[in-house]
Amino acid sequence: MKKLLLAFCLFTTGVHAQSTDSVTIRKIYNEILTNSPSYEWLRELTQKVGPRLSGSEGAQKAVEWSKQLMEKEGFDRVFLQEVMVPHWVRGAKEVAYIRNGKQKITVPVAALGGSVATAPKGVEAQVIEVKSFQELRDLGPEKVKGKIVFYNRPMDPTKLNTFEAYAGAVEQRANGANEAGKLGAVGAIVRSMTTVLDDNPHTGGMRYATGVPLIPTAAISTNGAELLSKSLKENANLTFYFKQNCETLPDAKSYNVVGEIKGSEKPDEIIVVGGHLDSWDLAQGAHDDGSGCVQSIDVLRTFKALGIKPKRTLRAVMFMNEENGLRGGVGYADYAKKNNEKHIAAVESDNGGFTPRGFGIVGTAQQRAKVMPWKPLLAPYGLHEIGAGSGGADIGPLAQLGTVLFGFKPDSQRYFDFHHTGIDNFEAINKRELELGAASMTALVYLLDHYGL
Amino acid sequence: MKKLLLAFCLFTTGVHAQSTDSVTIRKIYNEILTNSPSYEWLRELTQKVGPRLSGSEGAQKAVEWSKQLMEKEGFDRVFLQEVMVPHWVRGAKEVAYIRNGKQKITVPVAALGGSVATAPKGVEAQVIEVKSFQELRDLGPEKVKGKIVFYNRPMDPTKLNTFEAYAGAVEQRANGANEAGKLGAVGAIVRSMTTVLDDNPHTGGMRYATGVPLIPTAAISTNGAELLSKSLKENANLTFYFKQNCETLPDAKSYNVVGEIKGSEKPDEIIVVGGHLDSWDLAQGAHDDGSGCVQSIDVLRTFKALGIKPKRTLRAVMFMNEENGLRGGVGYADYAKKNNEKHIAAVESDNGGFTPRGFGIVGTAQQRAKVMPWKPLLAPYGLHEIGAGSGGADIGPLAQLGTVLFGFKPDSQRYFDFHHTGIDNFEAINKRELELGAASMTALVYLLDHYGL
Ligand SMILES: [Zn+2]
Ligand SMILES: [Zn+2]
Repeated sequence: MKKLLLAFCLFTTGVHAQSTDSVTIRKIYNEILTNSPSYEWLRELTQKVGPRLSGSEGAQKAVEWSKQLMEKEGFDRVFLQEVMVPHWVRGAKEVAYIRNGKQKITVPVAALGGSVATAPKGVEAQVIEVKSFQELRDLGPEKVKGKIVFYNRPMDPTKLNTFEAYAGAVEQRANGANEAGKLGAVGAIVRSMTTVLDDNPHTGGMRYATGVPLIPTAAISTNGAELLSKSLKENANLTFYFKQNCETLPDAKSYNVVGEIKGSEKPDEIIVVGGHLDSWDLAQGAHDDGSGCVQSIDVLRTFKALGIKPKRTLRAVMFMNEENGLRGGVGYADYAKKNNEKHIAAVESDNGGFTPRGFGIVGTAQQRAKVMPWKPLLAPYGLHEIGAGSGGADIGPLAQLGTVLFGFKPDSQRYFDFHHTGIDNFEAINKRELELGAASMTALVYLLDHYGL
Repeated sequence: MKKLLLAFCLFTTGVHAQSTDSVTIRKIYNEILTNSPSYEWLRELTQKVGPRLSGSEGAQKAVEWSKQLMEKEGFDRVFLQEVMVPHWVRGAKEVAYIRNGKQKITVPVAALGGSVATAPKGVEAQVIEVKSFQELRDLGPEKVKGKIVFYNRPMDPTKLNTFEAYAGAVEQRANGANEAGKLGAVGAIVRSMTTVLDDNPHTGGMRYATGVPLIPTAAISTNGAELLSKSLKENANLTFYFKQNCETLPDAKSYNVVGEIKGSEKPDEIIVVGGHLDSWDLAQGAHDDGSGCVQSIDVLRTFKALGIKPKRTLRAVMFMNEENGLRGGVGYADYAKKNNEKHIAAVESDNGGFTPRGFGIVGTAQQRAKVMPWKPLLAPYGLHEIGAGSGGADIGPLAQLGTVLFGFKPDSQRYFDFHHTGIDNFEAINKRELELGAASMTALVYLLDHYGL
């Protein structure tokens, strides 16, 4: 009988906790959907601060802006973590055209981050179109030497999650120049990473492997890629010209920006919520990743606004240099390790400011099982996709310290319309979608803080 | 042992069926995400046909366009169903301003569909702002007489589903003029139905109750509503002026457009999939409801493209006059009844061309239970919200015939950014989101056809 009673008590306590939690989560959503300044913060970060590639003046402004914002919000502690970051600059806008007989047809390209410049007068050569590295290797050096390699494998439109389609194509951007350079190519042009047909080249990171010739590499818009491919079918001897003026300067000093609310019961257990402060240089970095930054700050603001005193220490982290080096993410984990900090969980928002779908989890089966009872609390808010998945690039290095990682998972359908292009601007953001993301993250952080892991 | 064996066989058949279904559903998504012409169809319907309010030339063009399209697609039968529809015309663009002392500040308004015009020189009067009918009634006729009533209750931003917020505010638009007219007001101005603050007035239907004075009524943009409210706080004696030139002409002849694929086994059991062909006049009606029309046609196209011969008869129905009369929906059910047609299910898409979330079901608990085993087949495609809900206005009248209704449920966050405004144009549509809607509907129709209800 005692056992039964105990079981009953546990049961009712469980019900009570769930009901308290559901009330708190409802309050979180109400607060954010009614009072969140996140959209206005994002307006400032995107329109006033603007593009903020690592090492740029914009990145430095973003560091100062986010530090001041978190100080103004009255977090318990706001501090900078110094990191040295790559400093790549695009220089003057690129020029590219297809020369087909007497025709010269201009096409939109953008140098890939990390690429070398072309010779000052540009590079012009015949073109070899391939869909895979294997296809290129099969051609061999004699067919590739002196040519421009054109990688034209599209993102697979049948993948429901566009990040899977991205993962299936992005090696062309990341390693295309290496594979082409090894075989004697003089340049590498990569179809932009999107399923949309349009005129926006999508830049993004690449890195030269050691020992390969450093050939210039650029992204071409998908319409440009379609045109080039079609033109090659008509005239295999056409030439492609491009000129880019980018340059890698010495590493620059920069910072992660961290805002903290001290835990009231277990201050030594830390929960991180973050995004990355740097962006590519072509636009304002609204979805990538201004959204994640303002959402993360809004998580801590909301705890304060609702008077929820976290048991554990909460940190909003604006990571520097996700796009072309990950020095901020690596640096943050290094600091944590050096200072013997215990990070129980880290949540990252770096998949755009779109309508929420759920969270990916990186942790053991046991740790994931701990999260499953929370699903009914989150389902009413459209958060159905909670399970093993990806965390985020910046929080990735924390996994070595045993931290459980959570990747905020908004709907992915529109992300690659904007990613790394000139149109990833404030106008691309929907206020409600941005706020729902912040509320989803706050609800998860609330549960993580309340129940631990 | 026999029983056990039988159970085992049933079990494996079940598994086999599920696995065949999942393969077919995967094929449906692949086909649509790779080959669907729905986005290009929508381009034609929105940009070439354009706005298509019931009774307009655009509506007639849309009837012909959709009939020709379905004929070209080679459906077994394409036919028109005549319906008489209301014919309301806006006339010259409205003018409105706040006169505050010597200032005249223009604000964007749009006459509500069904409203009468103002006198040719417009109407100008003092303003009574209210948030509810009760508040208005409490003021009584002496305070309302000769005034313009300004309904300013916003849509509740804390509702996760924006249609709930709409449902909580739209009586102001639908019945505001009646409630104000009864108390002697000379006009009614309604805050636009959206949570966004912007300059787009949202039109929409209203209908005069019998016996009440017919006073003119218009929607004001949310920014306009905020300004008017703020100005009234400073000067309760300011006046509001508006002039509109709309008119209700005699009912016009129009049509539902129906395309059909005959069932191979149970041709007498009909499954409808549809949207409404009419739109408001301010824009191209892309989300409302061009999307639903092209998605419905794409359902039947996809069956043909994949060589899936439906057991039951499938119909794509372009309903006429959802926006201001529902004559098409009512007429369709009347035809069905008159012809003793057996409609087992009807699926409507009229909530925008956004990323899919699920389906609302209108049917008995038993009928809904029949659908539940399909959930695991649909969940991989982001369709998690399947359960009791709304069907759709046009298919609503079929409920009387025992038809189970399914409302396609896309994400609702952005719908009221566009609904009934001048910006519900083709550019507001994302191709992948539109296609995923079509694929979701095709998958559901496939299961409905395969298993019945
Ligand atoms: Zn990013
Ligand atoms: Zn509609």
